[in-house]
Amino acid sequence: MKPVQSIQIKKAMSVNELVNQMSLTGVLGSGRLGKAVNICEAMIKDKECKVFLGLAGPLVPAGMREIIIDTINNKWVDVVVTTGATLTHDLGEALGYRHYQGKADVDDAKLHEKGFDRVYESYMPNEIYEGMEDFIIKNFESLKDKKSIKEFLWELGRLTPAKSILKSCLENKVPIFCPAISDSGIGLMVWGQIAKGKSIETGAFEDLKEIIDVAWTAKKTGVIYFGGGVPKNYIQQAMQFSKKASYGVQITMDRPEPGGSSGAELREGISWGKLNPKAKFVDLICDATIAMPIIYAALKERIK
Amino acid sequence: MKPVQSIQIKKAMSVNELVNQMSLTGVLGSGRLGKAVNICEAMIKDKECKVFLGLAGPLVPAGMREIIIDTINNKWVDVVVTTGATLTHDLGEALGYRHYQGKADVDDAKLHEKGFDRVYESYMPNEIYEGMEDFIIKNFESLKDKKSIKEFLWELGRLTPAKSILKSCLENKVPIFCPAISDSGIGLMVWGQIAKGKSIETGAFEDLKEIIDVAWTAKKTGVIYFGGGVPKNYIQQAMQFSKKASYGVQITMDRPEPGGSSGAELREGISWGKLNPKAKFVDLICDATIAMPIIYAALKERIK
Amino acid sequence: MKPVQSIQIKKAMSVNELVNQMSLTGVLGSGRLGKAVNICEAMIKDKECKVFLGLAGPLVPAGMREIIIDTINNKWVDVVVTTGATLTHDLGEALGYRHYQGKADVDDAKLHEKGFDRVYESYMPNEIYEGMEDFIIKNFESLKDKKSIKEFLWELGRLTPAKSILKSCLENKVPIFCPAISDSGIGLMVWGQIAKGKSIETGAFEDLKEIIDVAWTAKKTGVIYFGGGVPKNYIQQAMQFSKKASYGVQITMDRPEPGGSSGAELREGISWGKLNPKAKFVDLICDATIAMPIIYAALKERIK
Amino acid sequence: MKPVQSIQIKKAMSVNELVNQMSLTGVLGSGRLGKAVNICEAMIKDKECKVFLGLAGPLVPAGMREIIIDTINNKWVDVVVTTGATLTHDLGEALGYRHYQGKADVDDAKLHEKGFDRVYESYMPNEIYEGMEDFIIKNFESLKDKKSIKEFLWELGRLTPAKSILKSCLENKVPIFCPAISDSGIGLMVWGQIAKGKSIETGAFEDLKEIIDVAWTAKKTGVIYFGGGVPKNYIQQAMQFSKKASYGVQITMDRPEPGGSSGAELREGISWGKLNPKAKFVDLICDATIAMPIIYAALKERIK
Repeated sequence: MKPVQSIQIKKAMSVNELVNQMSLTGVLGSGRLGKAVNICEAMIKDKECKVFLGLAGPLVPAGMREIIIDTINNKWVDVVVTTGATLTHDLGEALGYRHYQGKADVDDAKLHEKGFDRVYESYMPNEIYEGMEDFIIKNFESLKDKKSIKEFLWELGRLTPAKSILKSCLENKVPIFCPAISDSGIGLMVWGQIAKGKSIETGAFEDLKEIIDVAWTAKKTGVIYFGGGVPKNYIQQAMQFSKKASYGVQITMDRPEPGGSSGAELREGISWGKLNPKAKFVDLICDATIAMPIIYAALKERIK
Repeated sequence: MKPVQSIQIKKAMSVNELVNQMSLTGVLGSGRLGKAVNICEAMIKDKECKVFLGLAGPLVPAGMREIIIDTINNKWVDVVVTTGATLTHDLGEALGYRHYQGKADVDDAKLHEKGFDRVYESYMPNEIYEGMEDFIIKNFESLKDKKSIKEFLWELGRLTPAKSILKSCLENKVPIFCPAISDSGIGLMVWGQIAKGKSIETGAFEDLKEIIDVAWTAKKTGVIYFGGGVPKNYIQQAMQFSKKASYGVQITMDRPEPGGSSGAELREGISWGKLNPKAKFVDLICDATIAMPIIYAALKERIK
Repeated sequence: MKPVQSIQIKKAMSVNELVNQMSLTGVLGSGRLGKAVNICEAMIKDKECKVFLGLAGPLVPAGMREIIIDTINNKWVDVVVTTGATLTHDLGEALGYRHYQGKADVDDAKLHEKGFDRVYESYMPNEIYEGMEDFIIKNFESLKDKKSIKEFLWELGRLTPAKSILKSCLENKVPIFCPAISDSGIGLMVWGQIAKGKSIETGAFEDLKEIIDVAWTAKKTGVIYFGGGVPKNYIQQAMQFSKKASYGVQITMDRPEPGGSSGAELREGISWGKLNPKAKFVDLICDATIAMPIIYAALKERIK
Repeated sequence: MKPVQSIQIKKAMSVNELVNQMSLTGVLGSGRLGKAVNICEAMIKDKECKVFLGLAGPLVPAGMREIIIDTINNKWVDVVVTTGATLTHDLGEALGYRHYQGKADVDDAKLHEKGFDRVYESYMPNEIYEGMEDFIIKNFESLKDKKSIKEFLWELGRLTPAKSILKSCLENKVPIFCPAISDSGIGLMVWGQIAKGKSIETGAFEDLKEIIDVAWTAKKTGVIYFGGGVPKNYIQQAMQFSKKASYGVQITMDRPEPGGSSGAELREGISWGKLNPKAKFVDLICDATIAMPIIYAALKERIK
């Protein structure tokens, strides 16, 4: 049995040096954060491993967008699955809108009058919808015949006038999946066109073939989840068709006891045949917006 | 200011009598549970109000299925939005499978060998997938031309050989939406057919028109959320097109501070124009499987 | 393996009938609540078992006071351990003060000006301290020579002019322990006397002998925790000197992963020799103010 | 309104550089962590401010001991309040024992047989109690006449053969308070002497005068809470006698809605007159063992 090492802080230590110290405790939050970085590093460096990244929660309104874009551009991940809200925020920023620093303890009725939509303490200007509507109207012809949501999203990436998560996925040929795309601002903009009598060919089930093919043909797979929801579950489902995930890192604030997929411990996936019992994996109970910059900074020091 | 009343317990009191006592505290868990029942009662009894029910989490594996079916059969709700997992569990039970009492503290590798998939401490027999595959293969011809997910689900309801959430929705003409249906066992069965070269016409964006129409044309709207995820967010999104929800009840174990939609307080919806600032609403921080039977039992005593 | 039974709700069913239905699911929130009631019933009915009740959190400001008093008067518990805050709220109500229904989303500075102290959404009038100060000044002579905190608290119970948790403990000869009594309004009132040069003989370590004696001499022990904190930990510590607890029920909203005592699963106590590996025990993740009335109402139907 | 800045990660950036980037988001986890460091820095550098540090949870078993000792030796804090468990773990390590890296998913009955006590996934060897008992027996004569818990703890610090939190407090003349000291391994060792007929003079209420005096006479006060429990509440109570805290940082994983002191937002303290409405304060929802090393490393770069 290894003793817990007490963390030693040196002046001006780098993030990775701190994470290395955290690893040495081997237990609880610090130890798990250290382990999360180690496992991410291992799966990214493993040439045989296809890395599936699940992204849920307010990552863009919280300032995580550059890190996500860099992660994709670094070719650290092979598949991205996310929520419609993340892509709506991403597209909004690509169109020149920003999110603003606000507070949770506010009069929401007044905020509504001022035209801001609250995401806990980050504010999104409501005018983002106008810009997005113009954008979708202008580009609907090139979107409407996309058979799968992934093709629809890659096309969105091609069309966006500035760097974005969407564009990075296209440019790096990283498939990006968003099963519940209709549940988002982007979905609403498409509805706006449908409501005017236009039609769109995007199918609800089309992407399953591609994500399962990636999982099925991979020699090894690894999963990284920031938040739960559909992104996590959709990747987990694909893992049933892989040789069972060899690596797993989950960062969540949801709890396991209510039994929902978002809070489920990765270990549970072993019973489903989603995770290899011998996999390296860790559940890190931490706000994704705290863990992501630390993990990314440490990895940047370690990789290449 | 009203004083907090100390709860008085009488012998053999009914659930509704207990809930009434809880209401009198007016604060914290008990007070909020009491308020949740009062608001559900008010929105169900309000003839002008369309009630949108969001269902996420392991409700069927936890034994909530009969309550959900009864709620729909009672015509208490006008729209249901749920997850693919809920419908997969529902269909599985309609096909004669059961969930089993297990424990979280188990060897998942052995459980996998025995053919059980764990949902925290409820076990689903893996053979459910075989039965479901047979069912989908047998019925694919009648499913493949359904343009919207709702039509696909109603058809599933028609096809199920026994009572189910799906069938109740069809029989009561309650539209049921599941934007991320591809993220589920049912989705996998459809993928099985696609993988064999078959095609299905179900569109990713088709349902938006219907849910928004219901919201848009309703004189009043009310929302009830057991769990968050896509079901909650999809209803919230529709509320932006209603006259703003007049009633809101949310039951969740997720926290608001990480900023995700699932944990967001209903109050946040006011900033988005989803909730009327004068609405009656409450956030109840409770396991849905504890709150649902109590709320339903109290409502059954109060309504009709 | 037992199948999960879907809960059946009958009209006007009693709380105990509902709890019995919940028991039949056998899993998750409902199943655990059902199990919690079964285990409480078993330990209370077990003549050989000494029941230790730990109470933390805003139970009195939330309207749980009568239930706690009834529990003690019913002779269902043999030892009570609680926080100084609970006893301060209890004494305040015995002196004629009330708590009030408020809201969490309030201007705390204005609330301070109005003289109310906020406990999430329950308000305590600040004047409670004046009444308590008068009470302690008037009675300090009979309090100052109490050697142990328990004797100090029983004397407080004798002195209170109305029914109270404190008085019920005295009258039923139930030892009541509060290791951190100095961390409370009552503590501050004693400090007021010390600040004037008076002294008090109450020792910090005196009660350990009594609580350990009860644990040590009991044929069997059972523990019930509403909330964590010192009350839970102090009882757990005593269990090390018992024949290991045979029954355990914990109701908490704290999580286990951060590693604190309050959120620790009861199972962890097995490693410490506090809980018998063959004990009947359950961790119920629920707001204490929701669980307590339900459990009490069901027990009242079952016992005697 | 300030826009949320997307975090930019540079290679080999220092912890403080990362925290500065996090500050620029201004919202959610990252923004709050940045704000927490800024407020800690401000209160430590403010010559007029007395800093009260509350420590709860498994900080020593998680490897935070050196950081805590350094914090005290740096003279960054003026008062420490903690739990008996923290001091028991600290004394155990000073006596040469270690904590070990384990796992939560273990057979606790076997662990008990092997002589290890589990703290989630950190293991404490049970033999620590034997060493502690010898130590207390040997030194009881010099402990038994300590009138206050603080004097008792400073004496323990003097007696410990190696560096420790206790010794650092003594050497830096930092008062250390632990109202519930009887609720701990140290408490049990004292009980062992009482059980043999010895007596100890330590009073339950004696420390109140000192902590309130520090609060009362300070020009300004600041509070830092890692975890809740008695340490937080005891400091909060003292703040009522200060000129209201000017600075506040809370790191917790507990939630506010159940209404307990541990999860209460700092803002609530404004209603009680504990926190200045104009204070700089932040609630950081994070595992203390993740936040503490980051905050300390950033502060070390900024201070002196």
